[in-house]
Amino acid sequence: MTQKRKILYLPPVGLSEDILSPEAVSVLESLGTVIWNELDRNYTSDELLELIPGAAAVVTSWGSPVITEEHVAAAEDLQIVGHAAGSVKTRLAPAGHERGIVLLSAADVIAESVAEYTLWAMLSGQRNLFPYERLMKKERGWKPAPNWPGHSLYAKKVGIVSASMVGRRVVGLLKPFNCDVSVYDPYLSQEDARLLGVRRVSLEEIFADSDIISVHAPITPETRKMITGAHFQSIRDAALFIHTARTWVLDQDALLAELQKNRFNAYIDVFAPEPLPADHPIRDLDNVFLSPHVSGHTVENRMRLVEEIVRDIQRFFNNEPLRLAVPYEKLQIMA
Amino acid sequence: MTQKRKILYLPPVGLSEDILSPEAVSVLESLGTVIWNELDRNYTSDELLELIPGAAAVVTSWGSPVITEEHVAAAEDLQIVGHAAGSVKTRLAPAGHERGIVLLSAADVIAESVAEYTLWAMLSGQRNLFPYERLMKKERGWKPAPNWPGHSLYAKKVGIVSASMVGRRVVGLLKPFNCDVSVYDPYLSQEDARLLGVRRVSLEEIFADSDIISVHAPITPETRKMITGAHFQSIRDAALFIHTARTWVLDQDALLAELQKNRFNAYIDVFAPEPLPADHPIRDLDNVFLSPHVSGHTVENRMRLVEEIVRDIQRFFNNEPLRLAVPYEKLQIMA
Repeated sequence: MTQKRKILYLPPVGLSEDILSPEAVSVLESLGTVIWNELDRNYTSDELLELIPGAAAVVTSWGSPVITEEHVAAAEDLQIVGHAAGSVKTRLAPAGHERGIVLLSAADVIAESVAEYTLWAMLSGQRNLFPYERLMKKERGWKPAPNWPGHSLYAKKVGIVSASMVGRRVVGLLKPFNCDVSVYDPYLSQEDARLLGVRRVSLEEIFADSDIISVHAPITPETRKMITGAHFQSIRDAALFIHTARTWVLDQDALLAELQKNRFNAYIDVFAPEPLPADHPIRDLDNVFLSPHVSGHTVENRMRLVEEIVRDIQRFFNNEPLRLAVPYEKLQIMA
Repeated sequence: MTQKRKILYLPPVGLSEDILSPEAVSVLESLGTVIWNELDRNYTSDELLELIPGAAAVVTSWGSPVITEEHVAAAEDLQIVGHAAGSVKTRLAPAGHERGIVLLSAADVIAESVAEYTLWAMLSGQRNLFPYERLMKKERGWKPAPNWPGHSLYAKKVGIVSASMVGRRVVGLLKPFNCDVSVYDPYLSQEDARLLGVRRVSLEEIFADSDIISVHAPITPETRKMITGAHFQSIRDAALFIHTARTWVLDQDALLAELQKNRFNAYIDVFAPEPLPADHPIRDLDNVFLSPHVSGHTVENRMRLVEEIVRDIQRFFNNEPLRLAVPYEKLQIMA
């Protein structure tokens, strides 16, 4: 019976080298007849329209064609779409949601990687060990006198902007550090904050009162440039600002202006525009660590994207509870 | 009554700038009459012999004179010695232990800092983000194609050598990362391993089977060069080796020889001798991150050293349970 179930796998071969493990292949093939994308490019929307009739499940990823109302109409048997990537907001036409097609997002898998980057940035920014490495390698020296000041993460005041999937995972990674963690999130209930072990505070308090600030807010109409120059100006001297979310949520020019005062340090992974122009002045700042939008990328994490999506598709066909399903009403406040 | 209690504080003024907080001063002064060291150097053993009669408590730190049998004989009122530093093995003569003088060690406070360094090294070694920083700053570039491979800590196999104070704290910091953690420690019971949530394995298994290996063994007769060339040769390709303990426990030449093959990466904070000679060949290796024995040093942690010792002295005089007391029989297997 399962042999007759048709499953469409859309990511092209180049991407699949990074995200498709043998384990994911065998789970998927156990669920039905898989139509693999054998091309080195994404399908066009028209090609998907030809392929989708009869499919019970579709696996998508970065660059896959969006499933439009037309696709939904042609896909009478379609029950589930698993998106092996981050944002699912526009993946499936409203008509699909209305017909009850289940949508899975791997955003929570990627969140694990972004949260690790964030904890790394917190520890790295506090301790600042790279000058020692330079001293020992290039200058062939030993301890400077007096020692350069390194700082602990232990017991610090940490402010998290948004109890998003990443924000919640960061709170989890901080648990053993005995930090005083505050979260700004208008959708976080008192009870939920209690369970997370955090204080709910205003965005103003996050910026003015934290030793370390990390931004994990989603793109929604409400979050557009919600972090302003006044917030950046209120950051404590010698504090640490970490940004791995989207430039959508802040005033990047105001951030740059404040960073140029060299009052506090920052780890920044996201920029507008990307790629960051070669002559952008943020590249000149010693108090800022820069990375090119890679906080969500690790070899192991990319392989887990399809694996976790495929396991949830398996759960769906076994009538087991799903882990990555996104309720339609939640789509509006998600990244 | 407490006004008459005599308390000796031995660290010199230069060190006290780093380790003595106003809070610690006020707690100590609430407990009795404190004789502060006003010199910019440590007392000699003879000077201590003149000062110690009548003292109920002594606070010591790096470089303080050891409390010998002669001091013990002269210190009839001495009840507690609080060492605001790491190793207490030879701090107090056996005669003092036999008379029941309580010995406090701040090693568990320092352990918090070493454990943070270790977790930072694990994340930093896995993700390897500094080439991106160079690319974005010096070369004014963006993402390389293909991306440089970064790795997750999540779900990795981690091997910890010794369930010491640092080793246990590292296990605690790893809790949220869903790692498979093994510990080698002949003094770790099955039940204790179960409570820690780790597997007990041999030293050979730690080295041959781990993605990440971190050494936290103490200096004891049994640990002398217990990690050999054979262990280093068995490390997996592309694994990560972290050393923040003491060179006593390993064959440094054998480690160097294996590192020179560029098969795996290492973060190393301790060397023999220290300072490390300027022409030491380990300074030439790109697969090794070097720091000059600073894993236990942060500004906040140093301030906590005396604070935590002083709070335990306060607990002692209030007949409350102590947190930092070292039983005499445990001294032999400690760092």
